[in-house]
Amino acid sequence: LQSVKLNMMSGIVCILHDGDLPASLPWTIQDENLGVTDLGGAYVGPTQDRILGLAEELGVATYHVDDSNNSLAHLHGKIRRFTGTIPPTYNPVALLDLYRVMRAVDRLAREVPLRAPWTHPRAHDLDRMTAREFLRSLAWTRTTVSLMEILVRNVFAAEPHELSALGVMWYIHSGGGVERVANISNGAQERKFVLGAQTVSERLADRVGRDILKLKHVVASIVQTDEDVQVTTVQGDRYKAHFAISAIPTALINKMHFEPALPPLRSQLVQRMPMGSIIKTITFYSTSFWKQHGFNGSCMSDSGPISYCIDDTKPDGKHAAIMGFIQADKARAMCLFSPEQRRKAVIEHYANMFGIPEFLKPVGYLEKNWMEEEFSGGCYVSCFPPGVLTSYGKVLSEPFGRVFFAGTETAWEWAGYMDGAIRAGERAARQVLHALGHIPEAAVWENEP
Amino acid sequence: LQSVKLNMMSGIVCILHDGDLPASLPWTIQDENLGVTDLGGAYVGPTQDRILGLAEELGVATYHVDDSNNSLAHLHGKIRRFTGTIPPTYNPVALLDLYRVMRAVDRLAREVPLRAPWTHPRAHDLDRMTAREFLRSLAWTRTTVSLMEILVRNVFAAEPHELSALGVMWYIHSGGGVERVANISNGAQERKFVLGAQTVSERLADRVGRDILKLKHVVASIVQTDEDVQVTTVQGDRYKAHFAISAIPTALINKMHFEPALPPLRSQLVQRMPMGSIIKTITFYSTSFWKQHGFNGSCMSDSGPISYCIDDTKPDGKHAAIMGFIQADKARAMCLFSPEQRRKAVIEHYANMFGIPEFLKPVGYLEKNWMEEEFSGGCYVSCFPPGVLTSYGKVLSEPFGRVFFAGTETAWEWAGYMDGAIRAGERAARQVLHALGHIPEAAVWENEP
Repeated sequence: LQSVKLNMMSGIVCILHDGDLPASLPWTIQDENLGVTDLGGAYVGPTQDRILGLAEELGVATYHVDDSNNSLAHLHGKIRRFTGTIPPTYNPVALLDLYRVMRAVDRLAREVPLRAPWTHPRAHDLDRMTAREFLRSLAWTRTTVSLMEILVRNVFAAEPHELSALGVMWYIHSGGGVERVANISNGAQERKFVLGAQTVSERLADRVGRDILKLKHVVASIVQTDEDVQVTTVQGDRYKAHFAISAIPTALINKMHFEPALPPLRSQLVQRMPMGSIIKTITFYSTSFWKQHGFNGSCMSDSGPISYCIDDTKPDGKHAAIMGFIQADKARAMCLFSPEQRRKAVIEHYANMFGIPEFLKPVGYLEKNWMEEEFSGGCYVSCFPPGVLTSYGKVLSEPFGRVFFAGTETAWEWAGYMDGAIRAGERAARQVLHALGHIPEAAVWENEP
Repeated sequence: LQSVKLNMMSGIVCILHDGDLPASLPWTIQDENLGVTDLGGAYVGPTQDRILGLAEELGVATYHVDDSNNSLAHLHGKIRRFTGTIPPTYNPVALLDLYRVMRAVDRLAREVPLRAPWTHPRAHDLDRMTAREFLRSLAWTRTTVSLMEILVRNVFAAEPHELSALGVMWYIHSGGGVERVANISNGAQERKFVLGAQTVSERLADRVGRDILKLKHVVASIVQTDEDVQVTTVQGDRYKAHFAISAIPTALINKMHFEPALPPLRSQLVQRMPMGSIIKTITFYSTSFWKQHGFNGSCMSDSGPISYCIDDTKPDGKHAAIMGFIQADKARAMCLFSPEQRRKAVIEHYANMFGIPEFLKPVGYLEKNWMEEEFSGGCYVSCFPPGVLTSYGKVLSEPFGRVFFAGTETAWEWAGYMDGAIRAGERAARQVLHALGHIPEAAVWENEP
């Protein structure tokens, strides 16, 4: 078990964070009236063994997100109830088409090699197409196109026209298929941490030892020689090490000045993997009244300000709340609104979707615009515009001298999720161990046992 | 006449360059045997009034690139001679189609508003499409698709699938139409500077005064208050000013740490405008023997290592040479070759295309891989992937407090060219003059008289 935390404990890796500890993806806040709230990464689910194992090891408990009762889908101006995982359509052709396209996407996604997606026989063809172009060429009906586009928007916080079809297939494979990434029960949104996701980071930080973590130390430059790496912060502190691991998003690597300069392909890659666009909102109510109306609080929408919402009430029934994502084009447009205007748009959306005026009377509203976070640049993850994966993918997890690159987008299982962040960190740590001669190269590319 | 240089002379603007003076787009080298060679921006043409006017003012003469004789086109494995501007096709349907598509592109491009391309009635539709998708939907024949794709690759140093159709239309409008951007005579490649393009920068630097230019000063951070802007370099020098103008490519703005942090939309925009991919090569011969074979040295290719080449012999006939671009996917692939391997691929390409074995015996070879230039990040210009222009375009030339943004991609005439760089600098200078209360707002948005 050669994980990052072991590396840190043995003093091999010096961790320099670009901001506060909370500026990493999980961002949990504590409020006397509203309880524990995750404004960043929050959900975990089956097969996310690294994050679940780490949480268990650190004694951080999870609970099941309630998805019993009816979900809603808002499509082409119509609102419909449904249960289970497949969104509602009463037209048998549309339903057949939806199943067909979901199957086709899953089949194709499974064929895309996780470690080398650019080697798929259709890699170049698929990478030259946007996800929008691909889905439109595949689907017979407008309903299927819309539902698949909502899925893409929710999974990437990006518009389907911004993404390469190959990149989307690879990502879906990395997350275990369409239903696994989309679902609550048996899917990526199945569970949350009782004390909030940041508790995992906090307890890990305690275990590693707070004294070796340098928070709020913004890295200004990384100078390397044949012997070592010298890291200088904006504040002027200097650190020397044999190796360094960078775990900031690929898009932000440019924030650090490298000497020697980054190799040409990496320099261009960091210009080509933008972070998604999202404002996460939590709206609190005095009770979870929607349950009495037979709703589970989940509603997907192709046109509302909130593209996807979900019950966020605590497992003990306290702090009744709805979590809602403002995503992609909507996020960029609503970025320019005031928080009060956004709050109003959100509660009006809920009242209209669920047909319950009580939604207009929240007892609290929290939001986090991830686009304004300097050290994440957006959320949840970097995405691949057309052409990037085939032209630059190979350098994504390639070391640059004594500097190794982690970050969830460099994982090949659950890339983009907290689980992928841990897997990528472990892989980078194994790269360091290999460079030190402690493990053979083959061991670098195997997951932790 | 409120130009950047006047601003600089009156001490309003403090210029801090991220690297050497030569690291700006023009990069001229002097070699005893090979003469003056432009390894960066080189060409100028009609309607590029700002650069031509500045050059004239500074006494820098131009000469006409020789495009008499035959050009070559290498398409689908066939090599054909042609004269004039329209590439050869002997199939009347293909020829008709090519004219039709060029006309349609020109007509549509002219309709895209230069200062606000996102306001075009079809803006969202066109921005969701890649240039590849758009050209394939428009053209009847494979010949037209290939020729238009070669054009796109040559104009952007990017693959058609990487670019938004709206972005391409806007750029073509900004350069005055398809033929204007593509052509030598009466086009953007009509002229070069006798002493090399960098002479313009050098003479301007002399006129401004070398003492106020801080070259090799890498900007680390920009801290602004209501009163002023403080710029700190990596070396630790500090400069204070009332206003600052940043003219580095949008993709590299992230290299500077901002306090307060960049607004959310600009922070995401700088992740979404990657620089093109190009290796510029110059191959020298003892004589321009291709002229005796009836060639002008120009050859476009859909599959060779050199997508476009052109005679680079000096106007007095000395230093016979061919300039050749390795672009987009080819540039990324050939990035990993050694210079010797690239030289070999280039001369073999010329020998095959022109059918003249003498091309295998060059007397010199120079190249510049712009992807490895830390302070340009690529060349010639940033491009717009699908969705970026409509979602983020508005913030491109929007000031951030006391910081204004220039750079050729923020111009609305000849964006991407040296001419656009000057226009954008002048506009940013007028924004500063307006902020100082010297000129009305309307005057900011007018070109220099």
